[in-house]
Amino acid sequence: MELTGNQLIGYAESGEGPASFGGVDPRSRSTLPPRFREATENEVDRALVAAEAAFEPYRSLPGEQRAAFLRAAAREIEALGETLVERTCAETALPAARVRAERGRTTAQLVAFAELLEEGSWVEARIDRGDPQRQPLPKPDLRRIKIAIGPVVVFAASNFPLAFSVAGGDTASALAAGCPVVVKAHPAHPGTSELVARAVLRAARTLDLPDGVLSLLHGPRPATGQALVRHPLTRAVGFTGSLRAGRALMDAAAARPEPIPVHAEMGSVNPVVVLPRAAEHDLEGLAARLYASCTLGVGQYCTQPGLVVALGPDARALADALARHALEATAEPMLYDDLADAYAAGVQQRTKLDGVELLGQGEAAADGTAAPAVLYCAARAVLEHAELLDELFGPVTLVVEAADGAELLALIERLPGQLSATLYAGDGGASEYATLIRTLERKVGRLLFGGVPTGLEVAPAMHHGGPYPASSDVRATSVGSAAIDRFARPICYQDAPPALLPAALRDGNPSRILRLVDGTWTRS
Amino acid sequence: MELTGNQLIGYAESGEGPASFGGVDPRSRSTLPPRFREATENEVDRALVAAEAAFEPYRSLPGEQRAAFLRAAAREIEALGETLVERTCAETALPAARVRAERGRTTAQLVAFAELLEEGSWVEARIDRGDPQRQPLPKPDLRRIKIAIGPVVVFAASNFPLAFSVAGGDTASALAAGCPVVVKAHPAHPGTSELVARAVLRAARTLDLPDGVLSLLHGPRPATGQALVRHPLTRAVGFTGSLRAGRALMDAAAARPEPIPVHAEMGSVNPVVVLPRAAEHDLEGLAARLYASCTLGVGQYCTQPGLVVALGPDARALADALARHALEATAEPMLYDDLADAYAAGVQQRTKLDGVELLGQGEAAADGTAAPAVLYCAARAVLEHAELLDELFGPVTLVVEAADGAELLALIERLPGQLSATLYAGDGGASEYATLIRTLERKVGRLLFGGVPTGLEVAPAMHHGGPYPASSDVRATSVGSAAIDRFARPICYQDAPPALLPAALRDGNPSRILRLVDGTWTRS
Repeated sequence: MELTGNQLIGYAESGEGPASFGGVDPRSRSTLPPRFREATENEVDRALVAAEAAFEPYRSLPGEQRAAFLRAAAREIEALGETLVERTCAETALPAARVRAERGRTTAQLVAFAELLEEGSWVEARIDRGDPQRQPLPKPDLRRIKIAIGPVVVFAASNFPLAFSVAGGDTASALAAGCPVVVKAHPAHPGTSELVARAVLRAARTLDLPDGVLSLLHGPRPATGQALVRHPLTRAVGFTGSLRAGRALMDAAAARPEPIPVHAEMGSVNPVVVLPRAAEHDLEGLAARLYASCTLGVGQYCTQPGLVVALGPDARALADALARHALEATAEPMLYDDLADAYAAGVQQRTKLDGVELLGQGEAAADGTAAPAVLYCAARAVLEHAELLDELFGPVTLVVEAADGAELLALIERLPGQLSATLYAGDGGASEYATLIRTLERKVGRLLFGGVPTGLEVAPAMHHGGPYPASSDVRATSVGSAAIDRFARPICYQDAPPALLPAALRDGNPSRILRLVDGTWTRS
Repeated sequence: MELTGNQLIGYAESGEGPASFGGVDPRSRSTLPPRFREATENEVDRALVAAEAAFEPYRSLPGEQRAAFLRAAAREIEALGETLVERTCAETALPAARVRAERGRTTAQLVAFAELLEEGSWVEARIDRGDPQRQPLPKPDLRRIKIAIGPVVVFAASNFPLAFSVAGGDTASALAAGCPVVVKAHPAHPGTSELVARAVLRAARTLDLPDGVLSLLHGPRPATGQALVRHPLTRAVGFTGSLRAGRALMDAAAARPEPIPVHAEMGSVNPVVVLPRAAEHDLEGLAARLYASCTLGVGQYCTQPGLVVALGPDARALADALARHALEATAEPMLYDDLADAYAAGVQQRTKLDGVELLGQGEAAADGTAAPAVLYCAARAVLEHAELLDELFGPVTLVVEAADGAELLALIERLPGQLSATLYAGDGGASEYATLIRTLERKVGRLLFGGVPTGLEVAPAMHHGGPYPASSDVRATSVGSAAIDRFARPICYQDAPPALLPAALRDGNPSRILRLVDGTWTRS
């Protein structure tokens, strides 16, 4: 399993650009072989041209064949075995158990989309049968189905080197919809990316899929991403990462001659709201659960709870309990150096703000590592310094004390869009906090009652997205089966000869899918 | 039924701005009383503040109550009787029969969305039940539902003064989803707009709905629209009109601190493709049908077929037959003067292009009118002058002769995104034109086999949208029940206490809606 560091453009390799970077082991801070090449503009163009060439034959395949591809890709990724685990651990400093679990999630996602295709109802077929006798005008026969949107560019995330990367949720949902994918690898795990891309390409070759259904490009500088988003053949973009990078892609996409949708998931602080009676019985237990969630994977989750808002005096007690955990902790390596630097600077910057206290932080270690930190302030400080509501990527949480319900609501109103919020309400009746819940609903994509926001379940009812800036489109999810809707769009056939209709729209419903026929959902 | 020309901000009137314009009768070219006032920035702000205040109580109403509102609005519009018909005819020069039919379509749309709410499945409820015993981690209970997106700004269209205007499809679908609406009236029919807005507001008052659920603002200059789109409380935009105006709104929305979705339907040339054997039996009949569609409502439909592409020598015969109809026609008034001027200039400009012939045009009449015109050229001219593929609003069609199948495909490939395409294939087998169909699919939102693209059916399986520039988002429709999806977005509740869940997500499915429960669509 030799890595070459080249671009993988469909079934071909290309090495036009300079071999300018490599994967770095965050623990040893040494560069891992081989050197990786940056994609040139010409290679960007060739990857999109290949994707466009693959689009028509690939989207025309029956859903079952695309499902077979996703299943084969999952098998090929599993077959990489410890080679993949070792490389991923080396490039990310994530523990092997986490990497294996993430691999399981990745292959499970591929299989879940395969099942969605095999079941078939995702195309949301709608049929309104015609009536040539209708007066004053004949009623046409209308049949609507969802089809693939076209070549999709996927930007891999640093913090999920498998599940939100080359063969992650964005790629799986785009391939499921019938869209060829050009992946921009994350420079923090180029070797992992090449291993996974080769596995997917092996699956594609085995099934004799059109050349260009998947390409992998490396580009550690923003110019590569910009070129991919601006390319006229790109029809949609999937992205998971920072607000700054995501917004830059949104702006580039909106400024194109033909604007295209960007589905960017850009993180948030995922507030945890603790009402008075919620903590009183087991404050230590709550603190332990929250601390574990805050620091899971060195705090490198987009669902990490970076803000805890508590009403009244429990706030300080909870903050102190969290801080005791932090003080016992040691620093751990983040995914790459820039993250650790930004984390250290961010903690320092926040600590300097009026009214913000650093209650506890774990022992500092080598450069490139992050020590868990617990900050504390009154709600007033947050209302004065809105930057405290911005995400700081890493194992930090800010506990905010709200003096009363009105201050709590004012703070929630001030929140930018969030992927999630978690409410610990204790045993008060619903009526006591109905307004709070309604206000939280408007701010989030997912509202938890107890528990912790990390550990996202991959399931049809999951919604992973939220109002801007948590994501670019509040209507879209990047996790769960509804993620396929981002890369599909309806087409309506009017008075089509039956022989020309896709099976999903034919009379008799040969594939037994759920369809809206003359206004009624039915499988018959 | 006195018109005041003021802004209607919720239940209040406001007249801060200058009374600077009025409705104009396109036939007599006289200005109709009263004078209408332009909304000030302050009024724009107040309308959005009122919409925001109405949002929480309005979205919280049971679907049945929003349905009752839509039904009451339909009744109030009907109750305007001939007052509305006369005013609309006077402001648009559209015939009374057309206005009455459009009124019927408008109220039918309102009722269709009411039915959608009463049935209830549109919220796409998804439930994955939890399992506290699951290893290694308990499985959370996940319940997802669609909720309203927030205050929506709707830009009324000139060419459908009722069905795509104050209480048209955009407003109906936004109100159905639970979004308060601020309508920017089209300056070509301000009196019609005020009548309809007052009717909807009467319905809202009768049902004691929150103040601000609907507002109507007048603004004949682009600045008003820009202010509405830029307002921080606006959460989504609906628009029907020109590419130029639509793109300006898209750009403004994308440049906001928090970008918002713009659903703009911006028209197209709706190509009709005629294959050799399709015309041979009844070329005159085909020409008559196409001519009627091209000139329906003085060609002022976004689905108007402005391009006919025919293979081989039939092209010229078809063009000549169309031209004979045009030569017999007389000019008719367009909706407003600027349209007629742009139409005349556009026909002239196209006629001057190398290789383009004006085969026939009806007799010119007064200023402000448009005479049907038939243009003709070889495919080569279109490939050289791409502007021939841009929409020219009015009763004109360009017949293009493609020498062979390859040239036909090259021309189709060159097309920008289209709302529709219509294929006349004759009795050839499907295999003969499979590539043509696949190519057309990628260009359009609706593909017709025979018939004409005008006379859009309002039905659940309709899709009215298409790749850019036909619309801003290829995934969205502005006609049919799926239009509601533009103004709703999912939220997921994790481990919510049953009492806090909306009825649609409760165990036992009290409203008997279709839900995805543990991966299976069911009503039980």
